[in-house]
Amino acid sequence: MPATATLADRLLSTRSHSEALCQPLQTEDYVVQPIEDVSPPKWHLGHTTWFFEEFVLKTYAKGYKAYHRDFAFVFNSYYESLGKRVVRAHRGNLSRPPVQEVYRYRRHVTEQLMDLLEGNVPGEALQLVEVGIHHEQQHQELLLTDIKYILGNNPLLPAYSPGGPREYVPRPRADWIPVPGGIHEIGHRGEGFCFDNELGVHQVLLGDFEISSQPVTNGDMLDFIADDGYGRFELWHAEGWDWVNRAGIGSPLYWHQQDGHWLYYTLQGLQQVEPDAPLAHLSYYEAYALAQWKGCRLPTEFEWEAAQQRFDWGQRWEWTGSAYLPYPGYQKAPGALGEYNGKFMVGQHVLRGASIATPHGHSRHTYRNFFHPPHRWQYTGLRLAR
Amino acid sequence: MPATATLADRLLSTRSHSEALCQPLQTEDYVVQPIEDVSPPKWHLGHTTWFFEEFVLKTYAKGYKAYHRDFAFVFNSYYESLGKRVVRAHRGNLSRPPVQEVYRYRRHVTEQLMDLLEGNVPGEALQLVEVGIHHEQQHQELLLTDIKYILGNNPLLPAYSPGGPREYVPRPRADWIPVPGGIHEIGHRGEGFCFDNELGVHQVLLGDFEISSQPVTNGDMLDFIADDGYGRFELWHAEGWDWVNRAGIGSPLYWHQQDGHWLYYTLQGLQQVEPDAPLAHLSYYEAYALAQWKGCRLPTEFEWEAAQQRFDWGQRWEWTGSAYLPYPGYQKAPGALGEYNGKFMVGQHVLRGASIATPHGHSRHTYRNFFHPPHRWQYTGLRLAR
Amino acid sequence: MPATATLADRLLSTRSHSEALCQPLQTEDYVVQPIEDVSPPKWHLGHTTWFFEEFVLKTYAKGYKAYHRDFAFVFNSYYESLGKRVVRAHRGNLSRPPVQEVYRYRRHVTEQLMDLLEGNVPGEALQLVEVGIHHEQQHQELLLTDIKYILGNNPLLPAYSPGGPREYVPRPRADWIPVPGGIHEIGHRGEGFCFDNELGVHQVLLGDFEISSQPVTNGDMLDFIADDGYGRFELWHAEGWDWVNRAGIGSPLYWHQQDGHWLYYTLQGLQQVEPDAPLAHLSYYEAYALAQWKGCRLPTEFEWEAAQQRFDWGQRWEWTGSAYLPYPGYQKAPGALGEYNGKFMVGQHVLRGASIATPHGHSRHTYRNFFHPPHRWQYTGLRLAR
Amino acid sequence: MPATATLADRLLSTRSHSEALCQPLQTEDYVVQPIEDVSPPKWHLGHTTWFFEEFVLKTYAKGYKAYHRDFAFVFNSYYESLGKRVVRAHRGNLSRPPVQEVYRYRRHVTEQLMDLLEGNVPGEALQLVEVGIHHEQQHQELLLTDIKYILGNNPLLPAYSPGGPREYVPRPRADWIPVPGGIHEIGHRGEGFCFDNELGVHQVLLGDFEISSQPVTNGDMLDFIADDGYGRFELWHAEGWDWVNRAGIGSPLYWHQQDGHWLYYTLQGLQQVEPDAPLAHLSYYEAYALAQWKGCRLPTEFEWEAAQQRFDWGQRWEWTGSAYLPYPGYQKAPGALGEYNGKFMVGQHVLRGASIATPHGHSRHTYRNFFHPPHRWQYTGLRLAR
Repeated sequence: MPATATLADRLLSTRSHSEALCQPLQTEDYVVQPIEDVSPPKWHLGHTTWFFEEFVLKTYAKGYKAYHRDFAFVFNSYYESLGKRVVRAHRGNLSRPPVQEVYRYRRHVTEQLMDLLEGNVPGEALQLVEVGIHHEQQHQELLLTDIKYILGNNPLLPAYSPGGPREYVPRPRADWIPVPGGIHEIGHRGEGFCFDNELGVHQVLLGDFEISSQPVTNGDMLDFIADDGYGRFELWHAEGWDWVNRAGIGSPLYWHQQDGHWLYYTLQGLQQVEPDAPLAHLSYYEAYALAQWKGCRLPTEFEWEAAQQRFDWGQRWEWTGSAYLPYPGYQKAPGALGEYNGKFMVGQHVLRGASIATPHGHSRHTYRNFFHPPHRWQYTGLRLAR
Repeated sequence: MPATATLADRLLSTRSHSEALCQPLQTEDYVVQPIEDVSPPKWHLGHTTWFFEEFVLKTYAKGYKAYHRDFAFVFNSYYESLGKRVVRAHRGNLSRPPVQEVYRYRRHVTEQLMDLLEGNVPGEALQLVEVGIHHEQQHQELLLTDIKYILGNNPLLPAYSPGGPREYVPRPRADWIPVPGGIHEIGHRGEGFCFDNELGVHQVLLGDFEISSQPVTNGDMLDFIADDGYGRFELWHAEGWDWVNRAGIGSPLYWHQQDGHWLYYTLQGLQQVEPDAPLAHLSYYEAYALAQWKGCRLPTEFEWEAAQQRFDWGQRWEWTGSAYLPYPGYQKAPGALGEYNGKFMVGQHVLRGASIATPHGHSRHTYRNFFHPPHRWQYTGLRLAR
Repeated sequence: MPATATLADRLLSTRSHSEALCQPLQTEDYVVQPIEDVSPPKWHLGHTTWFFEEFVLKTYAKGYKAYHRDFAFVFNSYYESLGKRVVRAHRGNLSRPPVQEVYRYRRHVTEQLMDLLEGNVPGEALQLVEVGIHHEQQHQELLLTDIKYILGNNPLLPAYSPGGPREYVPRPRADWIPVPGGIHEIGHRGEGFCFDNELGVHQVLLGDFEISSQPVTNGDMLDFIADDGYGRFELWHAEGWDWVNRAGIGSPLYWHQQDGHWLYYTLQGLQQVEPDAPLAHLSYYEAYALAQWKGCRLPTEFEWEAAQQRFDWGQRWEWTGSAYLPYPGYQKAPGALGEYNGKFMVGQHVLRGASIATPHGHSRHTYRNFFHPPHRWQYTGLRLAR
Repeated sequence: MPATATLADRLLSTRSHSEALCQPLQTEDYVVQPIEDVSPPKWHLGHTTWFFEEFVLKTYAKGYKAYHRDFAFVFNSYYESLGKRVVRAHRGNLSRPPVQEVYRYRRHVTEQLMDLLEGNVPGEALQLVEVGIHHEQQHQELLLTDIKYILGNNPLLPAYSPGGPREYVPRPRADWIPVPGGIHEIGHRGEGFCFDNELGVHQVLLGDFEISSQPVTNGDMLDFIADDGYGRFELWHAEGWDWVNRAGIGSPLYWHQQDGHWLYYTLQGLQQVEPDAPLAHLSYYEAYALAQWKGCRLPTEFEWEAAQQRFDWGQRWEWTGSAYLPYPGYQKAPGALGEYNGKFMVGQHVLRGASIATPHGHSRHTYRNFFHPPHRWQYTGLRLAR
């Protein structure tokens, strides 16, 4: 889809991409929530639809009536301003509305949005449609990784699809890229879309540093395991060491040891661990410990942004050493959208880049993703700095 | 189905009844597990099938090979002797095998059983088929109450089926039935099928008592609530009082107060609470407190069994004052079937009777059902004694 | 103390025995609460005092004013009728009132009671003093076992006192005592004191049985361990098996394995496990599993009471197979004392006998003690029946 | 104590200050641990002693033998390199060693240290004594705030001492101090002692900002409460809002509402809340919400350090908006001391300044304290920036 596509085209394309991602699923796969972080696919389909209904149609489509009076309760994620909602941990307890009803809901809302866009719409509404598109793209990423979790934690280990994104792209050898210190400009500038957490362009002063041209690979992890990296407390944060011992962690998520070999569950099913493929599915604790073991460190998000045009990125989300905090001058958006980013700025770490689950057109070098330190169901990896 | 029906006929009829119970479901309804006690319908369908495969076909059908090597892991409930299994709380995380695959599994096993029964089968195998039929009937009861829980805890409150069992059967006024004390024989005697926990016929000495001709009604509960029964500690066990306060309990399960009226979720959807219908969905704690408030008590299971031919029963499971313990001379069955009943004989209370969810032919006056005190998703009620 | 001692004598003697039990303690030992079940010794000293103040002095001592307005809050155990109280799990968080203040409180209340008893007191008050004496004796038992827990779970394993009760009394070989079936009278009859749960004398019909002349010994437990009894699920209740695995249980409480030998923490410090001493500190689950492994069972509390005059008892509390339930015709005492026993009659099992921690004069053959199945910090053992 | 005092003088003075802080305590107060974060005073006394024994005496005092072979187990805090230890949450379960024994242990170790310092000691040992002094000073701060928690959560609300630090020092009106942006040097430079987390002097680029000349006061909190600040989700982090609701928070720690007035527990007992005194005992969540409500924000730790010479500080620890992360070039100390700071650099926030609990000579403008967001038993307050 060219950047010059109309908003309506991009809307349609985004809406249909979500559904295409679900095409390989059985009806049953749409429903379950094996851990609280992983939402049922039908919830993602419904929630992204509710978002448009709530923020666009209810305000700008004349005489619009909610498709179903209970769907705001069922599909609201975390917007306190917008009323009560199903507790997150209970999303997987809901067999109704059934999948086909969610698809009907999607069609209805998409059609209403298209009707709206054909008319004379205020710029504000267009901006909200734009937000809705990017919001749905964010959920596409979660949708794919949630599907992976649902299938990859089933004892039958079914494949998602032979045609899904390939997880194993061998990478060239890593080199160190020297980056001279100085004042760098950080944050989003210009015309394109961005989220509020990227705004507040500002300058940071960096020292000299080196950053790797490649993400850390599975081979590095195999060496870390062989060197008892999961058993050496001095490599870990106290909190990470506690996590390793309490949860009995000894390898990245989706790694299985069978007859002395390491296998890895991918969207195409169980495969051999390929040493030269970029490593994924690490917690922040593991990323930190692995960097310590290499005698290096994680880059800050500022170093990453300052250096990013000098290396390839986009296959793994990369943990940075930076906590998720507001940029100087950060302002929450007014109204319910103000709950989008700002209220999560405590206790999480920033990831930079993108992953194979990121939809086309959704990545940019100022993008700030964020997760809690123990999370690893995203395609989370790392890049070394020193 | 007449009692003289052949074993094969009864097998077929039982197998198809389980499926008929699921006929009103959407595919999505088969999958979810909103609380640990409630299993997904497709799990019940698979587990009852695995039970036949494991206990009958693997031993008695020549050359039988397991339908799927992972199904023992997926569908074993609690038989330690039979290997590892999915942790109970995770049954609702499994989208696979899909529902249609479970139906195929059912057909396969049913056909193999029918083939087996046509041949020359040892009496032992016939007995195990008999156990399997009664086992599946027990699960039919759970299947229906689990379905009720799944739908009745969904915010959309969908009805199960207009044609399902009616929950509201008005009852005549209750009378006190005097029962003279003396020595009574307790336990199962005779030809018909029973579980091992009913065996060990023995005599008990009872004092004179009176027992009500009717179960307690919704009207009694409405009075109890109006008299602040849920707020008066002196009516409750310490453990029950703690439960009421911690869980914020103020009415039976499935009761909803709307605009000052009490509504009740039934298999036909939300309805008015009918005062003269038998009360259901009580914990043991509530049954005890309600009896205390009436100045009465629960009958023991021995009183119940001694008196049962003098009153109607069968619409509600009735909590008794008896803990679930072995009869004198109780012997566990040998092998894995020994895990069926005996290992649960601590911490639970006995219910007697049957409920509207009990399949035809599965109730008898020596039947001992048992649940933990806080459980109330079965059609549990009470009958007063004094 | 002869049975003919006056009430005042017995009161004084009981009050001073509680203090004598604490004589070997350091001030620090009075304060801690390592698990919720174990109360700090100073709490026992204060609570038994508050009991007299609340039930006797406030009503019968003219013009009596509470010693301290907050002590009812601090020292109430579980009497809902008597107002709010410190949550049980927080008793060990209270450094104040200090130990010396609790002793002053004791002296004050004891003196007031003695003054009261010198006057013209209604019989009701005398009965309540009697209850208070037995209540304090019950707490003496807990006091000693709680002290054992506090010291025995300290890494320094300090001894309580060289002069405390001896835990190891070798026993003669066990014989089977045949008891003919028939109708037996159960419950307390006669003049002496008893608790309300012993009342309701009634007849029970027992079958023939045999009961062991001796409690099970440490030697039996050593054999059970050697035969992997803690690792064989078929010996256990499902709930017990779960407990063993979750809590990592492999021996009775206070047993320590060092260099291949089993040691046992006693009130005199760490000692060798003596095979011919009666076994103690078992949960109900362990008692049941051990009996199963011996091919026997636990007696019911009725069998125990019917046979008790034919064997020695009193060194270990003995788990019975009976759940703690009301006798026929059981009536709670009126007022706050009605909370003493009745509200605990769910989910617990009956122990019969007495233990080396039971104060002189506090045991009788109709006494019904009760604990939850996992509890084992009392001197709990078992006696076999078949 | 003048800065020029000898190391031995400062050692003695520090050791005796810890004991002076405990002088007002009852023996019982030394033992309890009402929440996991709060350690028993006797544990602090023992742990700071063990630190000297472990890091100094065992290596540098010829022929030194551990005072007690179990004390390393009892008094190790979190040093994985130094072997097993009592689980933190169980510190309050230990009545032994008794308080007097801990004092003997202190005297023994202090004397041995003094002997050592009189001899010919390598510089390395002197540095470790220096670390030990600062370590003990850190624990003095915790000791006082832990004592406050122990007494302030006792229902009797006893005062610590009429002579302890005064919590209420009225402050002048706040002014805004404008600070021009530019490059500032951050981190510890020079001769004096500092911890490793202050090292790595580096430059940061700050924009223009204003910072308040005074910490936020109780009066601001009273207004915040009156304006329903604890009930308005839009002021809070999602995690903070969750915390407020789950824990039922409606005021700072130690605030009590009685008859419409706000009282505050101080080291001198319960007092009126004084509006012009600096606010204390806030979580990071509350500090953030209060700043939001004022239309301001928390300063970063870099802004604070750059501006600190222009305002008074030292009565409250001040939450900053900065996560606790390593400075560029941060290096952990080698050996067990490397566990002192670095392993905590995830999930915590930086506090700057000092408090009335900070011992004389222990504060400096580069000092970085750190706590988890919900913690509030320290004298934590805030200063506004914008």
